[in-house]
Amino acid sequence: MAKYERHLFVCTNRREPGSARPSCNADGKAELHKLLKQAVDAAGLKDRIRVNQSGCLDQCEHGPTVVVYPEAVWYGHVDPSDVAEIIASHLVEGRPVERLMLAEHCIHTAECEHRPGKELKTREVAVCK
Amino acid sequence: MAKYERHLFVCTNRREPGSARPSCNADGKAELHKLLKQAVDAAGLKDRIRVNQSGCLDQCEHGPTVVVYPEAVWYGHVDPSDVAEIIASHLVEGRPVERLMLAEHCIHTAECEHRPGKELKTREVAVCK
Repeated sequence: MAKYERHLFVCTNRREPGSARPSCNADGKAELHKLLKQAVDAAGLKDRIRVNQSGCLDQCEHGPTVVVYPEAVWYGHVDPSDVAEIIASHLVEGRPVERLMLAEHCIHTAECEHRPGKELKTREVAVCK
Repeated sequence: MAKYERHLFVCTNRREPGSARPSCNADGKAELHKLLKQAVDAAGLKDRIRVNQSGCLDQCEHGPTVVVYPEAVWYGHVDPSDVAEIIASHLVEGRPVERLMLAEHCIHTAECEHRPGKELKTREVAVCK
């Protein structure tokens, strides 16, 4: 078997309550990682695509974050309800989910709209501004 | 700041003693991750290159393993003494360290020589055969 076609890293960093920066895994359950892994398995992609937990990806203001390599697509504010679309669109059809992507200028930037072409939701404003 | 130019994931998975497969982080100290991170900082690459811990990369027989994206270079049996060369050659000069690279046919394969162009050392034979 060759290298993985795609390799997903799900930030599961957990900060102490009251930390200056938000946390991708506030409740310590790493649910997003589990759901993505289960969905990849269920889609029959287990041998071609790996889903790993990672330490802090340093995009805390946009978390929970997921990065997909080798294409280096960064997703921000990923919710468990987004998992099915990431699998179907990005991992099966090869079309990254634009509505979840962090814009290039948002990476390493706490204050930005971080989702191109989409109006900010209250949750996003609250976290990012 | 833009995306990371390179993103290293260091497997820090730790299995229970007596497990069927070996463990990349047998003593639980994640020393390799710490050393790589410190060396990247010391080389002034911190803003361009990220070093993260990851969960099991599933190349346990060749561990400790490190994968470098976006180029998808896989290193196996990485020792703390290899850190300086990875920094200088791969991360500064852009030349992956061939002697540490897992051959394409070794990925997901427990039994292989897994280092092209290099004779097996006793440690490697013991682990892989």
